[in-house]
Amino acid sequence: MTEEMQDIAVEGAAFAKKIFDDVREFSKDPVAGVSRQGYSAVENKVHEYVKEVGKTLGLEEWADAAGNLFLTLPGEHRDLPAFVTGSHGDSVPQGGNYDGLAGIVAGLTVLWWMRRTNYTPYRDMSVLVTRMEESSYFGKAYVGTLAMTGKLKPEDLKLRHRTKQQTLAEAIRESGFDPEACVSGKPLADLKKFGAFIELHIEQGPTLDSNKTKRVGVVTGIRGNLRHKVVRCIGETAHSGAVNREFRHDAVLATADFLMRMEKHWIHRLDREEDLVFTVGVLKTGDSAAIAKVPGLVTFCIDMRSLSMGTLERFHEVLLSCADKVAKERGVKFEFDQMLRTDPAKLNSGLVARIATTAAENGIPYIAMPSGAGHDSAVLTNAGIPSAMIFVANQNGSHNPREEMKLEDFMQGVKLLWKVAEGFDTERE
Amino acid sequence: MTEEMQDIAVEGAAFAKKIFDDVREFSKDPVAGVSRQGYSAVENKVHEYVKEVGKTLGLEEWADAAGNLFLTLPGEHRDLPAFVTGSHGDSVPQGGNYDGLAGIVAGLTVLWWMRRTNYTPYRDMSVLVTRMEESSYFGKAYVGTLAMTGKLKPEDLKLRHRTKQQTLAEAIRESGFDPEACVSGKPLADLKKFGAFIELHIEQGPTLDSNKTKRVGVVTGIRGNLRHKVVRCIGETAHSGAVNREFRHDAVLATADFLMRMEKHWIHRLDREEDLVFTVGVLKTGDSAAIAKVPGLVTFCIDMRSLSMGTLERFHEVLLSCADKVAKERGVKFEFDQMLRTDPAKLNSGLVARIATTAAENGIPYIAMPSGAGHDSAVLTNAGIPSAMIFVANQNGSHNPREEMKLEDFMQGVKLLWKVAEGFDTERE
Repeated sequence: MTEEMQDIAVEGAAFAKKIFDDVREFSKDPVAGVSRQGYSAVENKVHEYVKEVGKTLGLEEWADAAGNLFLTLPGEHRDLPAFVTGSHGDSVPQGGNYDGLAGIVAGLTVLWWMRRTNYTPYRDMSVLVTRMEESSYFGKAYVGTLAMTGKLKPEDLKLRHRTKQQTLAEAIRESGFDPEACVSGKPLADLKKFGAFIELHIEQGPTLDSNKTKRVGVVTGIRGNLRHKVVRCIGETAHSGAVNREFRHDAVLATADFLMRMEKHWIHRLDREEDLVFTVGVLKTGDSAAIAKVPGLVTFCIDMRSLSMGTLERFHEVLLSCADKVAKERGVKFEFDQMLRTDPAKLNSGLVARIATTAAENGIPYIAMPSGAGHDSAVLTNAGIPSAMIFVANQNGSHNPREEMKLEDFMQGVKLLWKVAEGFDTERE
Repeated sequence: MTEEMQDIAVEGAAFAKKIFDDVREFSKDPVAGVSRQGYSAVENKVHEYVKEVGKTLGLEEWADAAGNLFLTLPGEHRDLPAFVTGSHGDSVPQGGNYDGLAGIVAGLTVLWWMRRTNYTPYRDMSVLVTRMEESSYFGKAYVGTLAMTGKLKPEDLKLRHRTKQQTLAEAIRESGFDPEACVSGKPLADLKKFGAFIELHIEQGPTLDSNKTKRVGVVTGIRGNLRHKVVRCIGETAHSGAVNREFRHDAVLATADFLMRMEKHWIHRLDREEDLVFTVGVLKTGDSAAIAKVPGLVTFCIDMRSLSMGTLERFHEVLLSCADKVAKERGVKFEFDQMLRTDPAKLNSGLVARIATTAAENGIPYIAMPSGAGHDSAVLTNAGIPSAMIFVANQNGSHNPREEMKLEDFMQGVKLLWKVAEGFDTERE
């Protein structure tokens, strides 16, 4: 073979594309995009399909009691912890084809490449296809990996489908798996057998796609968040014509004031290189609001994310003190519901450094960046598995039918994954 | 009689209170407050009741084809234009007892006082009880006075009751009046017979009530308004965790920025003594908004009121240029629907000055102030009738069951009305 033929990024493209096309075809939503509900006939079909691919590559297959699927190319030393890569096979309703599936196809393409180049690994090389990572249908995210790591709770099984008369337990059972085992509190797979878990995923944001040359991301950590689902700004309803400014307690202007102050503090923290995003995604005046009334009530939610819980906690203090100031100045009241907290997930620093080094050595330009969205990798790293992530540029965000990804960008990520796998495999401790 | 006994504010209180109590009793809403729909059995009952009062005072009664009722104490010179006072007998659903009724009771109390003090006026003195001033039931305000001045439109008769199977035409007819005559385009009463129209009304705002001594208002004009029912701020929906600030086009923050800029301009104009109120009464994110999404859409309405159309028009220009600046800076778009325009109503400056002078002469502390809400007086002044208004302090705004008014404040307004009537009557042109 010539040097050129040895490039997985060139030769693997057709193999990867066929899987993307086939899975898109059978999981198309009748309205738009794809719909691959976790623990449904469509997700099962994804698993059946990749098992068929596994057969053509001579991979071993095993699924845990939650249906998480391992396709393994056996290594010379089967007792050694395996190199595992993969992602989830489900999607949000009317989502895009690449959220989750990209990580599965990347892993399969690496194993295909090993077979094609007659590479026999030193240790087992596995593709992990997880179950139900998205929360859209039952309101619970990471169901597959939480079950696998012994963290799914009995009460989670009672969660109801958002439209159907079905519990999560029923959905798991109907797909042929064991809901009770999923909540036994014990891991369903031998977690010590994971030498490393690397998840390739589309970025779901614009950072990579807006960069001309750096189309691959080395993920440094997964942002945690502090949230308030409902904040109420309570002012005083009044006649919009008959009440002058000095007598008003306008909940809309008070909220706008509060948000502009928060934005200033946010920018100040970004200027100091802190990692932070601040979002008020839902906001509305009360039900009795009208064009001729000074608004007496605004409700809104708050989502703040950062790699650093310290940054979040300090910003939350700023939030409360800003609300307090605006309340005093404008004669309104802010009421915050209980704060919800998700800790940032620390990825394995050795693996993160290995990915960065490998990219540099192989001439793959990359950006070191946080993941703002949560991922199965967060569950696995929290369960003690050395984990890391590779991001690939994509277009139009995700969780919507317009999500796109360019195959050439994807193949750069695959190449990096292959090189990382090879390096991990050939290093002898 | 002693000097003390000559005070209408003291002696008229019991007469006025009885009417307020009686009308409240028979127009009580089963849930809260009072409900006196225009052209309904309850409004008819208000008219029957005040006619009975008129009989005890020996007043002449006449109603136009729209049911607007005139109760007249005949003057010595019946050919002269009359002094007319009054207000509307209807209310919003679950409204307060004093919005409208106060002006009727004030007029009746003045005529009662004339009888009691054996005052024979030089010219006719009338109390006008108008029909359906409120828009709550059929969506059209000032129906009675619009009909009386020949301004009601044939299409208005087709308006439907908000809950019942009834048109406005049917409601008018069922109350015993003539819907076709109401929309003939011709006045239903001889407008030249109005020498002056003075409407006493509760303020519906807090300006007077928050003043310890000045509990009466001399209305300088009725604010006009410019409105946009729907303004859309269009940004870009994105993942709240995965998209950093520099890539966002956040519609909520853009709207907050826009509103804070508008507030600054508003304060600037108030500092320059311009008359202006600015209200965003309804505001909400789009239907697909969620806690984990950067908001891509906010819709809101705008209501701006002033005594000066020039102020409104200049402020509207500021509005558009602020929106433009925010749009450019934040990469969002503002879309404004068609602007709705209601011109300010100019009250008769001679009458306004007469009321102010009379108050000063009689030791009644007052505030000269605009009316922010619309009133029948605006319709009558626009029809060429010399009109003015007296405001009385009230509590808890209006259009809600908690609306309150103190009898002692009201009686100060009645006293002023009596003195103005007397002064108008005794002045010989």
